[in-house]
Amino acid sequence: MAKKYNTPKGTRDFLPEEMSTRRRVLDKIRENFKLYGYGELDSPALEYLEVLSLKSGPEIEGELYSFTDKGGRELGLRFEFTSPLGRIMAANPTLPKPFKRFQIGKVWRYERPQLGRYREFYQADADVVGSYSMDCEVEIIDMVINTLDSFGLTEPLILLNNRKVLEAQVEACGIADDKKADVLRSIDKLHKIGPKGVQKEFEARGLTKQNYDDFMSFITLAGTNEEILGETSKRLSDKGGLQGINELKEILEKSAALGHADRIKIDPTLVRGLAYYTGPIFEAKAETESGMGNFAGGGRYDDLVEVYGGQSTGAVGISFGVERLIEIIKESDSGGESVSAPATVFIAVLEDAVRPEALVLARALRQAGVPTSVDLTGRAAGKQAKYAQQTGMPFLITVGPTEAATKKFPLKEMSTGQVSTLSAEEIIGRLRR
Amino acid sequence: MAKKYNTPKGTRDFLPEEMSTRRRVLDKIRENFKLYGYGELDSPALEYLEVLSLKSGPEIEGELYSFTDKGGRELGLRFEFTSPLGRIMAANPTLPKPFKRFQIGKVWRYERPQLGRYREFYQADADVVGSYSMDCEVEIIDMVINTLDSFGLTEPLILLNNRKVLEAQVEACGIADDKKADVLRSIDKLHKIGPKGVQKEFEARGLTKQNYDDFMSFITLAGTNEEILGETSKRLSDKGGLQGINELKEILEKSAALGHADRIKIDPTLVRGLAYYTGPIFEAKAETESGMGNFAGGGRYDDLVEVYGGQSTGAVGISFGVERLIEIIKESDSGGESVSAPATVFIAVLEDAVRPEALVLARALRQAGVPTSVDLTGRAAGKQAKYAQQTGMPFLITVGPTEAATKKFPLKEMSTGQVSTLSAEEIIGRLRR
Repeated sequence: MAKKYNTPKGTRDFLPEEMSTRRRVLDKIRENFKLYGYGELDSPALEYLEVLSLKSGPEIEGELYSFTDKGGRELGLRFEFTSPLGRIMAANPTLPKPFKRFQIGKVWRYERPQLGRYREFYQADADVVGSYSMDCEVEIIDMVINTLDSFGLTEPLILLNNRKVLEAQVEACGIADDKKADVLRSIDKLHKIGPKGVQKEFEARGLTKQNYDDFMSFITLAGTNEEILGETSKRLSDKGGLQGINELKEILEKSAALGHADRIKIDPTLVRGLAYYTGPIFEAKAETESGMGNFAGGGRYDDLVEVYGGQSTGAVGISFGVERLIEIIKESDSGGESVSAPATVFIAVLEDAVRPEALVLARALRQAGVPTSVDLTGRAAGKQAKYAQQTGMPFLITVGPTEAATKKFPLKEMSTGQVSTLSAEEIIGRLRR
Repeated sequence: MAKKYNTPKGTRDFLPEEMSTRRRVLDKIRENFKLYGYGELDSPALEYLEVLSLKSGPEIEGELYSFTDKGGRELGLRFEFTSPLGRIMAANPTLPKPFKRFQIGKVWRYERPQLGRYREFYQADADVVGSYSMDCEVEIIDMVINTLDSFGLTEPLILLNNRKVLEAQVEACGIADDKKADVLRSIDKLHKIGPKGVQKEFEARGLTKQNYDDFMSFITLAGTNEEILGETSKRLSDKGGLQGINELKEILEKSAALGHADRIKIDPTLVRGLAYYTGPIFEAKAETESGMGNFAGGGRYDDLVEVYGGQSTGAVGISFGVERLIEIIKESDSGGESVSAPATVFIAVLEDAVRPEALVLARALRQAGVPTSVDLTGRAAGKQAKYAQQTGMPFLITVGPTEAATKKFPLKEMSTGQVSTLSAEEIIGRLRR
């Protein structure tokens, strides 16, 4: 047997049947972003390595596809959309603010491929840059809830916390500033490694049992949002921490006015790994057939534009887990195969002499917006019909000498086998969207 | 001043205003492909270098972004969509044929950047794989003409030739087989270097003056399509060449039945650089403000799938010059700035107390499909209105205490300054698409 060629490890082809589902998901996210007044932005797949690592530190380089190009420049494939956004905002200081943009496209990460994890995948981000107001958070959370609702997800839940509060909590526990990042990194793993695991990490990092107990007593507070925030603020004296509490209260209050009171839950354990958040952070979860899924996450990062040499400015962003939304849509799609058919109608052609008639009919259908495929093989009628069936096309029209002469065509509905003999106009009337 | 960061050489950012034009062009091409029953396919940006060079020969590697990944694999960024298609067809032998797919996305070429040439650009391809019938060519040419028509291009013209005819012509001139590629490479440059330049290249490659005269007399034939094909076939005895003539006649005849008789012109000088074509080849040109432009090109390549280890099968493809179509749309767009506005309506908010009313109004508009942006800054009303103007939003609604109380809102049309005071429902009735 001849050699077969594959895609590179961790990357995939999407044949039309699967791609049509992906496209519907991408279009729906795009539509939601546009309804909220976000404009589409496109940036190169390749960036200077420096641009990619500036935001996340040089340790990110291990997770990137990077290389030296023929001109000796260090380049990398983008691994997310926030660093290009920082670069663009810094380079375009006169853009009217707030600048609301979305970006949907592929990103690349050089990770060990594993189930559900790929090295090339889609990401969909919306960010607002140029405002310190909590109204940005309120808008983005409202957009996330409405987007997940539009995907039919059951009661999406927003988990909410604030980096300012987390940092004040670290301080209140008497933990040194240079251990702050370590503490948050451990807490970020709480749901994976459990309290015992966190305790071990604290120990390994030279923190005391008292440090651990104090910090855990902060983040294991239970109760209503008001109770958690009230108790936390009682225990904090740091100005930044109290400001963080007030920010969360403002988000909750304004979101409640939009009817989202039951949809947002303060989660003191929420950290969100990436280092660049500076204020409120949030994640969107929803019930799925295989348990709770995480569908989006984001937060405020007021330092980003400055990092890229621009003026300091407020910024809030959200990133959707596109691949997970695609899985959800696939589950709910079962049975609707005609959705992914390449065309609505297949025109079978009985002999070459009537092909002009078939093509004129095809043109009329296409001009009316009806996706139409015509036989391109000249093979036997049975084989043509079988092809229409195999590719899931919902309607079949067969054109022979009689049809060409009378201009009446048999429109067969493939799912029922029912045939109606109709003129081109009548067919259009029935199939036009 | 702080350091500014750029995109890598030959790559670009597209801010929302420009991207909205690009998106319209990409959507329109996609829509046309779908009307003809082509299904969307997506393949990785990265391919094994071997896959990319298999089709075009190792000399292509100089034009690629390629590198060795951390696992020691030789990878490259795709530079077109045909080699992935060959790989996919070979790996999926059971796909129903003909397999009609389109792919729209970015490709990368490591070329010297020059005016209008980039290292990262969009390409849009449609291909049919699995048929040797000229009906494939007829369909693809029809699709090209209708697509360019839908872009408002003035009378697109299809230039048509056949590799089989070109090869028979080389043979009829008594030129050795091993010089065939050289001859075609020189002829491909005819319009750039002129007949004198071609003659010099023939000499440099050891061909005689007689070879040059004979070949030029073939490809400088003038007249109607019938005259050129008639004269050419008189001079050819090679079976393949005569079959090539018949293929062109069939394409012309069947396209004439679709009303395209005046749109297709036999061009004996047409070669189309890439080496893999095996039959009819074509290019689509149209008049633009800056002269004749080349908007699409393609042809038949029956060997491709075999090259990737699959079963030999017929294939015809077309590739659109997306960047050129975008330029055309930009020229014809002048003045229609509201097309690229991030939202249809901007809602200014006079004080925080009425924000809930503003957000409820925004939600109603969005639910009705009207893209809506709400102030996120709390700044003075004048600054909010200026922002709506700067970002080109066609309508402005200002919400203050009176509006919140009466639920009547002043809808200002920005282009005329006209204000109507309306309920949310009335606003929706006016702005809904």
